[in-house]
Amino acid sequence: MLAPSPIPFTGNPLDRASERRGDREWLAERWADPASLAVALWNGQPLVESAGEGVQIAYVQADLARAAAPDEERQALLGMWKDTAVFAVDFDGAVDPAAGPLQGLGRFEDLRTVAGQLPGPDAGVCATAKGLFEWARRTRHCSVCGHAVVAADAGWKRLCPACDAEHFPRTDPVVIMLAAHGEQCLLGRQPRFPKGMWSALAGFVEPGESIEEACARELKEEAGLIATEVRYHATQPWPYPASLMIGLIAEVSGTEATPDQTELEAVRWFTRAEARTLIAGELPGAWAPPPLAIAHHLIKAWAEAEA
Amino acid sequence: MLAPSPIPFTGNPLDRASERRGDREWLAERWADPASLAVALWNGQPLVESAGEGVQIAYVQADLARAAAPDEERQALLGMWKDTAVFAVDFDGAVDPAAGPLQGLGRFEDLRTVAGQLPGPDAGVCATAKGLFEWARRTRHCSVCGHAVVAADAGWKRLCPACDAEHFPRTDPVVIMLAAHGEQCLLGRQPRFPKGMWSALAGFVEPGESIEEACARELKEEAGLIATEVRYHATQPWPYPASLMIGLIAEVSGTEATPDQTELEAVRWFTRAEARTLIAGELPGAWAPPPLAIAHHLIKAWAEAEA
Repeated sequence: MLAPSPIPFTGNPLDRASERRGDREWLAERWADPASLAVALWNGQPLVESAGEGVQIAYVQADLARAAAPDEERQALLGMWKDTAVFAVDFDGAVDPAAGPLQGLGRFEDLRTVAGQLPGPDAGVCATAKGLFEWARRTRHCSVCGHAVVAADAGWKRLCPACDAEHFPRTDPVVIMLAAHGEQCLLGRQPRFPKGMWSALAGFVEPGESIEEACARELKEEAGLIATEVRYHATQPWPYPASLMIGLIAEVSGTEATPDQTELEAVRWFTRAEARTLIAGELPGAWAPPPLAIAHHLIKAWAEAEA
Repeated sequence: MLAPSPIPFTGNPLDRASERRGDREWLAERWADPASLAVALWNGQPLVESAGEGVQIAYVQADLARAAAPDEERQALLGMWKDTAVFAVDFDGAVDPAAGPLQGLGRFEDLRTVAGQLPGPDAGVCATAKGLFEWARRTRHCSVCGHAVVAADAGWKRLCPACDAEHFPRTDPVVIMLAAHGEQCLLGRQPRFPKGMWSALAGFVEPGESIEEACARELKEEAGLIATEVRYHATQPWPYPASLMIGLIAEVSGTEATPDQTELEAVRWFTRAEARTLIAGELPGAWAPPPLAIAHHLIKAWAEAEA
């Protein structure tokens, strides 16, 4: 499809055709069309198949997918690829559908594990489907009145039949920032990180904050740093379960940094040369998140920038 | 407090003291401290008082506010102003608390109406409190199981006692973009706009999208435009009820634009000179959103930029 996008999980090439989501007659025709396709997910894992050295989405004929997952609550229109409608269906439970109704069509793989082997557009399509279904899984009831909700708009809305509240997919903005002071950048370790891993600091944007304010607050809270300038770098949809990672590079006023011992157990300054070595996987005893994570791209962009 | 920030609703000067939100003993002491203050809101409207030519928050002594709004579900810690704890309390219903328990302490005013008269820091504090309470108002039940939830972490979390799900404040990222082609920019009219008003195009970020992708999709859907470059400008918290407005400037490939007749009823190109006149309020028959809206700042930044 399209050339891979530099930030993983972006690059979904489908036309989302949002104006069609409410057109039930058109949707029924598309589901029944033998040319229509579906992505299948089981507990957030996409159905994939081997392709050369990597993997790709194992698209299933849409009517077959619908027969296997007939609950409308677990179906969604992802959009159009040229003239082909592309749907998604969601399975949960303990029984592997690839050993049942989808036998012989592919295997379910953890998205984070296979994302690096998927073509960029396929990873983007999977991120969209997973994000949508993770939200649906947590939105079974109306948060206003508690009644069970029903799916509408081809999976993009959930309606409360009791109080008429409408619920739309939730996406949580998160700031993730590389703190820099001159020729050094700061990375931190969360207690849950694998041994030796260092990453950019991050936190959820709260009500009443710009992204620059959220960035400054998190740097202060987690490491005692004062941001003096914040630059936008890029964003990444992150379907674990529903974040929008907003990547920033923040100049800070000095190098005195103290981990808060709650979110962060340690912080460490890296020179540009060390950061380049870290990203290349060649710094002894220390490593950065893989290219799947926007943190990797933030560190790389700063490390490779001219001083 | 601080100098007003250029984008309204940013500039909340409080230290959010998020590490204190779970410390019930400390919170009880702060509520009881006669020096502690509270912002009162009634149906999203802050309690204000006149100050010179404008208005300011009419802060109420915290223990008095708590006595008037004793339901813990409607109380929140906003943070610290130096050594002073600042809380917020929420009233709803038809009876004006300023004619009841808060008599003589101020008047409740629509935030959008008075925001331009409030000092920047006060508007930021009100936006935080309103955003938090609008979320709380829509989060009475657990979206996972339907059970009633209870407030925790000084208003920043809601817990389900039945299924243990945790719910955090929701903030919806929205892209708002000025489309530009060389020396012209495009504004649109939504059917609900007041007569003569033109604004930047906007839409919610969906699962599986970067902000640049959401921007390109909305420009295509609403006006048939092709984005060729997207630049980040600024963000604005927008508590109606819970948006994060992400302001962008998008170069588009041409000037052929067609309103979709659903979201937009008309589009119009403005030269830089016209955009400057529009922002100054001097273009006959046409006007831009007021400085409260980030759209105003996007148009102004583009209009005043060098060609």
